[in-house]
Amino acid sequence: MPKSIDLHEDRYFASDPAERKIAKNLYMQVKDLSILSPHGHVDPNLFVENKPFPDPTQLLVIPDHYLFRMLYSQGIPLEKLGIPRTDGGATETDHRKIWQIVGENIHLFRGTPTGMWLKHELREVLGIQTRLCAATAMDIYDQIVDALAKPENFPRAMYERFNIEVLSTTDFPTDSLEHVDRIRESGWNARIVPAFRPDNVTDLMHKDWRGHIDRLSEISGEDCSSYNGYIQALEKRRVFFKEQGATSTDHGVFTALTLELDHREAEKIYARAIHGQATPQDAEVFTGHMLMEMARMSCEDGMTMQIHSGVFRNHNPAIYAKFGTDKGCDIPIAEDMVRHLKPLLNKYGNNPDFTLIVFTMDETVFARELAPLAGHYPALKIGPAWWFNDSREGMLRYRRMTTETAGIYNTVGFNDDTRAFPSIPARHDLARRTDARYLAELVAEHVIDLDEAEEMIMDLTVNLPKQNYKF
Amino acid sequence: MPKSIDLHEDRYFASDPAERKIAKNLYMQVKDLSILSPHGHVDPNLFVENKPFPDPTQLLVIPDHYLFRMLYSQGIPLEKLGIPRTDGGATETDHRKIWQIVGENIHLFRGTPTGMWLKHELREVLGIQTRLCAATAMDIYDQIVDALAKPENFPRAMYERFNIEVLSTTDFPTDSLEHVDRIRESGWNARIVPAFRPDNVTDLMHKDWRGHIDRLSEISGEDCSSYNGYIQALEKRRVFFKEQGATSTDHGVFTALTLELDHREAEKIYARAIHGQATPQDAEVFTGHMLMEMARMSCEDGMTMQIHSGVFRNHNPAIYAKFGTDKGCDIPIAEDMVRHLKPLLNKYGNNPDFTLIVFTMDETVFARELAPLAGHYPALKIGPAWWFNDSREGMLRYRRMTTETAGIYNTVGFNDDTRAFPSIPARHDLARRTDARYLAELVAEHVIDLDEAEEMIMDLTVNLPKQNYKF
Amino acid sequence: MPKSIDLHEDRYFASDPAERKIAKNLYMQVKDLSILSPHGHVDPNLFVENKPFPDPTQLLVIPDHYLFRMLYSQGIPLEKLGIPRTDGGATETDHRKIWQIVGENIHLFRGTPTGMWLKHELREVLGIQTRLCAATAMDIYDQIVDALAKPENFPRAMYERFNIEVLSTTDFPTDSLEHVDRIRESGWNARIVPAFRPDNVTDLMHKDWRGHIDRLSEISGEDCSSYNGYIQALEKRRVFFKEQGATSTDHGVFTALTLELDHREAEKIYARAIHGQATPQDAEVFTGHMLMEMARMSCEDGMTMQIHSGVFRNHNPAIYAKFGTDKGCDIPIAEDMVRHLKPLLNKYGNNPDFTLIVFTMDETVFARELAPLAGHYPALKIGPAWWFNDSREGMLRYRRMTTETAGIYNTVGFNDDTRAFPSIPARHDLARRTDARYLAELVAEHVIDLDEAEEMIMDLTVNLPKQNYKF
Repeated sequence: MPKSIDLHEDRYFASDPAERKIAKNLYMQVKDLSILSPHGHVDPNLFVENKPFPDPTQLLVIPDHYLFRMLYSQGIPLEKLGIPRTDGGATETDHRKIWQIVGENIHLFRGTPTGMWLKHELREVLGIQTRLCAATAMDIYDQIVDALAKPENFPRAMYERFNIEVLSTTDFPTDSLEHVDRIRESGWNARIVPAFRPDNVTDLMHKDWRGHIDRLSEISGEDCSSYNGYIQALEKRRVFFKEQGATSTDHGVFTALTLELDHREAEKIYARAIHGQATPQDAEVFTGHMLMEMARMSCEDGMTMQIHSGVFRNHNPAIYAKFGTDKGCDIPIAEDMVRHLKPLLNKYGNNPDFTLIVFTMDETVFARELAPLAGHYPALKIGPAWWFNDSREGMLRYRRMTTETAGIYNTVGFNDDTRAFPSIPARHDLARRTDARYLAELVAEHVIDLDEAEEMIMDLTVNLPKQNYKF
Repeated sequence: MPKSIDLHEDRYFASDPAERKIAKNLYMQVKDLSILSPHGHVDPNLFVENKPFPDPTQLLVIPDHYLFRMLYSQGIPLEKLGIPRTDGGATETDHRKIWQIVGENIHLFRGTPTGMWLKHELREVLGIQTRLCAATAMDIYDQIVDALAKPENFPRAMYERFNIEVLSTTDFPTDSLEHVDRIRESGWNARIVPAFRPDNVTDLMHKDWRGHIDRLSEISGEDCSSYNGYIQALEKRRVFFKEQGATSTDHGVFTALTLELDHREAEKIYARAIHGQATPQDAEVFTGHMLMEMARMSCEDGMTMQIHSGVFRNHNPAIYAKFGTDKGCDIPIAEDMVRHLKPLLNKYGNNPDFTLIVFTMDETVFARELAPLAGHYPALKIGPAWWFNDSREGMLRYRRMTTETAGIYNTVGFNDDTRAFPSIPARHDLARRTDARYLAELVAEHVIDLDEAEEMIMDLTVNLPKQNYKF
Repeated sequence: MPKSIDLHEDRYFASDPAERKIAKNLYMQVKDLSILSPHGHVDPNLFVENKPFPDPTQLLVIPDHYLFRMLYSQGIPLEKLGIPRTDGGATETDHRKIWQIVGENIHLFRGTPTGMWLKHELREVLGIQTRLCAATAMDIYDQIVDALAKPENFPRAMYERFNIEVLSTTDFPTDSLEHVDRIRESGWNARIVPAFRPDNVTDLMHKDWRGHIDRLSEISGEDCSSYNGYIQALEKRRVFFKEQGATSTDHGVFTALTLELDHREAEKIYARAIHGQATPQDAEVFTGHMLMEMARMSCEDGMTMQIHSGVFRNHNPAIYAKFGTDKGCDIPIAEDMVRHLKPLLNKYGNNPDFTLIVFTMDETVFARELAPLAGHYPALKIGPAWWFNDSREGMLRYRRMTTETAGIYNTVGFNDDTRAFPSIPARHDLARRTDARYLAELVAEHVIDLDEAEEMIMDLTVNLPKQNYKF
């Protein structure tokens, strides 16, 4: 007999009964509050088009590099999982077959966040009662197909069902953002806002950087063949993004190195890049310089600035050649936040009206560097546990390593940071449960009082995101 | 109705009832033992003068960079907190107003050691019953003013009430230590001993290094214009410090780099420094060399040597320019203890009569480097969790990452390391509770027996400090 | 009255009753399963000769650098502990006297894995009931002497009593492995297999590298005066090792740096080494290159490849000069797995038939680097918590920092990695208990279901080692 999915109401709370009871009470106070999603990668065209999701594999497997990388790590070729090839090679098209492979390998996800989210999505979002395994895979596939055909599972209906108050996408300055107008014009009243992420034009080594610069000239009406025109184009696009609802920018960088070039030097490097002669060293310092420029602009226009740093992207060239980016080959590296952020913090960090949120996967810097820095500089806040650390243990370690030095008030609440739209409630639920569990421990051990914890769980869920992302 | 301060008798113990019971029993065995404070920064003139403490803000806010840096991190200017400006600029003088700001922002300290200590100080030291908040701040201010006027709250009376057995200050070789004689001559029988911290004359980049060298010549009677005279001056000052009760030296360094210069090279660098021509590289190697010299002298005179390393001081030049040092802008950095300490350990580390205590805030080196090193070299001991890590979680992580490889017998008990005299009992209480909690876990999980834990809590509280600091 | 050794049946499980009950049930399912020891350093001649173990000190103290380094760290000279001197100097020969020192200092091991293993060995392997201390040391010494004289405590009998299914030794390519034939010929039916560890011929700085190369020529019949002959010799020895039962290779390296030299460059460096002119830089790149060669050969012959990296060996020259290697002076260092393993993983890591197991003592790379890498590359698995981290806390940290990103299925089960034969059951028992405790927490917190945990404890104990070490 197939087993039921166990989505226990006390899951992720400590086993100790006294602590668990407190955690549950705290969690109940925020469980049903609307979702603030200030940073993520959901494709907004989902909501423009509002077409039914195609099938379980297309919904839950092919776009989720958390999931397929784990199958790959156990020797299952990405071709067999239907991952589209950028080199035009063949890839599995039978989505039932792919789903069956997932069912056969579901044990790989035991104890992982992907496993936890998937159970939540199957049960709570899609109404599946039985546990996914080799034997049940095909039956569950059919059930999901049926579910996806129902209007209540169309993207907009799901969005409403998820009780999302605001959803931020992540967009290049070269994007037209026409989805914003189209959604508004459709009369659907959802707050889906863009975020300004200029990596494609600030990273001189970005694939087709030159093409993006041309597109930037075109869309901004500024001549980006010179550095000055480029800076003006970025400023204009920020104005446009703000008009379209953006409240934040985001910067994905290899390291958090910041440095200020003098104007002439910046112009020279930019000119080399325009002529296709920029070196990797040029790119490194230019990126560091542009972080400074972005901080300057944030001080002027009030947009919150996010830095996501410390990822060695595309570590596996064989996979990159066949399948492109975002295929599970991005690996975190050690960071030096103390020296790297110093120029930016020294120049802009004392400005209390500027908000800089820094994300890292190098957990060793939380207690040693980021908490002391954020516990001092008014502008700096510590971004939530990110990517691989967006997990039950990862979030607990994050709180334990930041709270004692920075408090919770130099953090900003949760980000789901996902491409996988149907996983949003699962991710927020795990975060709320984990925060409740952390606070419950503080109450049970008489570090804080219960009424303080009640305020804190509300601050973490609602007030800190609103305040730091200026919603 | 204002809420009471909850200083629960079981605070900081695990919630599990079996473990908590053991923790409480262990704690009760050391709760009331006298305090050994072998390293700290209390101003000894407090006890020479024995004047009443001025007011709550002067007592608890203005000298406490742990506290005001957190308020600053949330956008409150240091000027509004009455922090004295070294540049002569204006700063708030209404101490009631400053205290009110603290009350309004007390939530920032939830879950932080500052929050825990403050509750303890208010309730146990000053007798305040109600929780500090915006509404109660002025009333509590008045209560503290009244309390401070009472003779039992004068510095010497407090010292006795705190049951301090020995208190070490931290002093430059250029200090006269006249407070030692003045306290002795006053007939007050407290053991307040100096510690020899020569940073102002060993760090060639120290502000006004040259002036300190002149003062060292003067106070030692040795001509410090040459390296040889300088070394002799330091040796003579060590003798004097020892006569005045010192049992330890301390060295605050950017990294734990040690290296031995040949005599001629040391003379050359020193000469450059005397002529104002030393480079930062000179300073770095000279500091490393002087650590070796200090180890040599400790092997000769028997004083315990402490190294506090790995802090990027004054990270924020804007604050440094206006307010000077120790304003919450000191940020820990990553360390390499394996290579940095090697020269010193190779030369002096096999000497079982030499005690070297190393402190770091880079927790990654505890399990990886310091515990294996201290679990081998007879001279080396691991200093307690320091500064930002002198906290409930920080101390637990420290024990978990050091005990399995080094045992507790290569650690040295607790340091309060504080400038804030009234926080001393709170800090020792937190440390005793945390040690009790750690040991209780080992007993509850049948790693050690209860009678072993009973010995260990005594060793941690009394025997290890006495032995390692030679009291 | 002497106290009994407390080897509580619930030891190392969490104190919370619900969690403990689950842990105990999981543990009971694997408690008595046979031991797989796929990596270790037991001397196989023990089983060739099958002579009674000489005495307690010779059995438990002199060969155990975990144990005597801790005594040394407290100022007890190694000479007093009977550690043999390579420089011919005198050392204590009265083994009763040495055992007495251990008894007097047994408190040093409270909370350490050595302490836990020793209790297990004394009680379960040797039948001692009373706790070792100064007062009981001589009596226990006599009891152990009596026990060791009994045939059931001879090496082969112990091996059978321990229920060992397979035991891997670690052997140089220059070893004859004649013990394999001698054991087989004796008619004793134990599976004791070699592992191919070529450090003595791949590390150009290895003491007497040149002598080992001559021995390699001789034993392989290939002329190793040229690089080509050397490579052929290694290939032939791998064939021989495989015939003698080896299923794995092992590589102990300073860092995990891998890189591919072109053939000519490799030949040049090798020629320099043959002429005694290799530099440390030559050695570093040659080691990196040979890791690539070993990966290539593993892809061809199917042997599992292990890398044990990140140890600063012989940190204390004074001890090395007197006592040689493996005397507790080996200290872990920080690692950079992302960049160092990249060449090898890029070339061989996508091969699902190749198994590469990487070990480190730099725990900071578990969550940040190794789990993401192993959660992607099919060939890569994360070796178990190693050496100083082969401990109750160390193994828990390991699971917490690897499972969420890599799952348990990119790990390989437990290694005892010991020279100390009688400690093998203690080590496996601690590992099984710790895994049970970890899984019990996941069940108690409703992360996984009980039936999943039951499968996982079996996988960790039996299936993952069998699969990854190809037993």
